[in-house]
Amino acid sequence: MICVLAGGVGAARFLSGLIQVVAPSDITAVVNVADDFVLHGLAISPDLDTVTYTLAGEVDPETGWGLRGETWTTMASLERYGGITWFRLGDRDLATHLYRTQRLAEGATLHGVTAEITSAWGIGVRVVPVTDLPLRTLVTLDDGTEVDFQEYFVHRRHEVAVSAVRVAGAESALAAPGVLEAIGQAETVVVAPSNPVVSIGPLVAVPDVAAALRARRERCVAISPIIGGRALKGPADRLMRELGHEASVVGVARLYRDLAATLVFDDVDADLADAVAAEGVRPVVGPTVMSDPDAAAALARLALRAADS
Amino acid sequence: MICVLAGGVGAARFLSGLIQVVAPSDITAVVNVADDFVLHGLAISPDLDTVTYTLAGEVDPETGWGLRGETWTTMASLERYGGITWFRLGDRDLATHLYRTQRLAEGATLHGVTAEITSAWGIGVRVVPVTDLPLRTLVTLDDGTEVDFQEYFVHRRHEVAVSAVRVAGAESALAAPGVLEAIGQAETVVVAPSNPVVSIGPLVAVPDVAAALRARRERCVAISPIIGGRALKGPADRLMRELGHEASVVGVARLYRDLAATLVFDDVDADLADAVAAEGVRPVVGPTVMSDPDAAAALARLALRAADS
Repeated sequence: MICVLAGGVGAARFLSGLIQVVAPSDITAVVNVADDFVLHGLAISPDLDTVTYTLAGEVDPETGWGLRGETWTTMASLERYGGITWFRLGDRDLATHLYRTQRLAEGATLHGVTAEITSAWGIGVRVVPVTDLPLRTLVTLDDGTEVDFQEYFVHRRHEVAVSAVRVAGAESALAAPGVLEAIGQAETVVVAPSNPVVSIGPLVAVPDVAAALRARRERCVAISPIIGGRALKGPADRLMRELGHEASVVGVARLYRDLAATLVFDDVDADLADAVAAEGVRPVVGPTVMSDPDAAAALARLALRAADS
Repeated sequence: MICVLAGGVGAARFLSGLIQVVAPSDITAVVNVADDFVLHGLAISPDLDTVTYTLAGEVDPETGWGLRGETWTTMASLERYGGITWFRLGDRDLATHLYRTQRLAEGATLHGVTAEITSAWGIGVRVVPVTDLPLRTLVTLDDGTEVDFQEYFVHRRHEVAVSAVRVAGAESALAAPGVLEAIGQAETVVVAPSNPVVSIGPLVAVPDVAAALRARRERCVAISPIIGGRALKGPADRLMRELGHEASVVGVARLYRDLAATLVFDDVDADLADAVAAEGVRPVVGPTVMSDPDAAAALARLALRAADS
C-alpha cells in the first residue's frame, strides 16, 4: 500500500505516473481541501477534481486542471449578468459541482461524495479528502487584507505579495475516515511534488494527520516541487520566500524534516545534497521533471526506491 | 399603469401580448415564487425565469420555458454521477441560477436580483417576485405524502392525484417592495391565465397582497385558464376537480370572486355567462386561446377593455 499526500496539478501528474508502477487499488491519495470554496452556491473542490480528472485520463492537457474538450456555455452566459467568471467552470465540470453540492445538502460527507465521483469515473485509486470538516486557506496580502485562497490564487493570479498564510479550521479538524489508516498502513508515504505551503501545509495542519505522519517519518519520502530554486508551476517559490523560507530544496527539506526522512529532488540541485543531509533529511537525487507520462512513472519509481535507500 | 399577477408559461404568453398593446414601462408583473426551490445548491425561480425569457424573446418556443437554442452538456454530464436530472437545466439557463444564487448569498434580495437579471436581458416590463421571503407550495398526494411542488409538477409530471395544496410561509410573508404600490396604483389589475391553485393561489395567500387586491376588486380583471372545462396546458383542471372545485369558468369565478369584479373567458363557454354573473362576477366573453403573438395581443386588448365594461 502506498499513501500519497496530494495537492492539485503536480500531485495529479505524479499519481498518473504512480499508477503505471503500482496497482491503483494499492494507492490512497489523501488530498488537500483547504482550497475548496463555495461559489454560485456550489461546493467546489479544485484539488480533488484535478486528481480525479487526471486519473480518469480526462484532464485538460493544456492547463492540467478541468476537463479535456470542455465547453464554456454557462460561463459565457454568466457574463451577460456581470457574474463572477474569473473562476472558470466548464459545462462538463459544472456537473461535478452540482452533484457534490446536492449530495452534501442531502447529508453525504465529502469523502462519501468523493468516493461516488471517483467510482463514476472508474478510478481505481482511493481518493480521500484529508478531512470532511471545513478547512480554508486564508492568505494575508502585503497590504494587510486577508483573502480567500482562490481570490489570491486565481483571481489575482498569485501576482501579489503575501505576508502570511493560515489554515482556518485546522485545529478542530479531524482526518476523514480512512486517512489515518492509509498513512499508518502504507509501506511508503509519498509527499507529492505539490506546494509545501498551500497544498501540503493544510494536510499537516490537521492535528491527527500530523501525528500519524510523524509516526511514519522513516517510511515517508517527500518530492521537492522546487527545482533549481524555482517552482515549475505556481507560486511555491515566491510564497516560500515571502514567508521567510529559502526557495530551494534545502528550504523544502526544512519544511518537511519532521515529516519525511527522505527528500527526492532534481539532478540540477545535486550540489545541495550535503545541505539537505545537514537538515537531517536523506537526499535522493534524480530526474524529477514530469515532462510526459514516462517521466512521471520514472519519478514514481525513484520515489518508491528512495524509501528503501 | 397595468399590474399583472403572473404564474409561468400562460402568464408569460399573456405578457408578451400585453407589451404589444401597452408600453412595457407601464407594466408591472407580480410573479409567483412558491414554485421556487433549491436544487444542486442553486436557487431556482421557474416562473420568474419563464416570464423573463419570454419577454426577452428568448424562451424556447417548443416548451414555453427555458431558453431557445439551449444546450444540455451539464445535464448529460450529471447523468454520469446518477445525479438529479429530471429537472432539466440547460447550459445557458444555468447561468441565471448561478448568478441568482451568488447574489442572494452576497445579501441581495430576490427582487433586487430579479431587477438585475431582467435589466441584463433588456426587458422594459418591471418583473417583481410577489415576496422576497420564502414561499413554498407543498402538495399532498392521495397516499398522504406531502411533496414539494416540483416533485409533483415536474418529477411526477402531475400525473398523480392530489388531496391538498398549501403554501408554506404565506402567513408570515410580506409583499416585496413595489408590489403593493403596483397593485394600488394600477389602472387595471389583470390576473393572467395561470393556474388558479398553484400559480395565483400563492400570490393571494400573502396577507398584505390579498388585502391590496381586495381593495382594487372593481379594477381587477381575471382571465380564465380553463376553456371548455379544460386547461390548455398543465394540471389546472385536474387540480381544481381534485380539490373540490368545479373545473369550469364558473369554478374559476368562484375562486376569484373576492379578487376580481370581471372574468374574461373563452367564447366556447359563452353559455356559462349567466352562471358566472350569478357568482357576482361580470362575465366578458371572447377568444382567449393565445395561439400566436397576435392572439396574445388581442387577448390583452380584450382584458383591458373588460375592465371598463
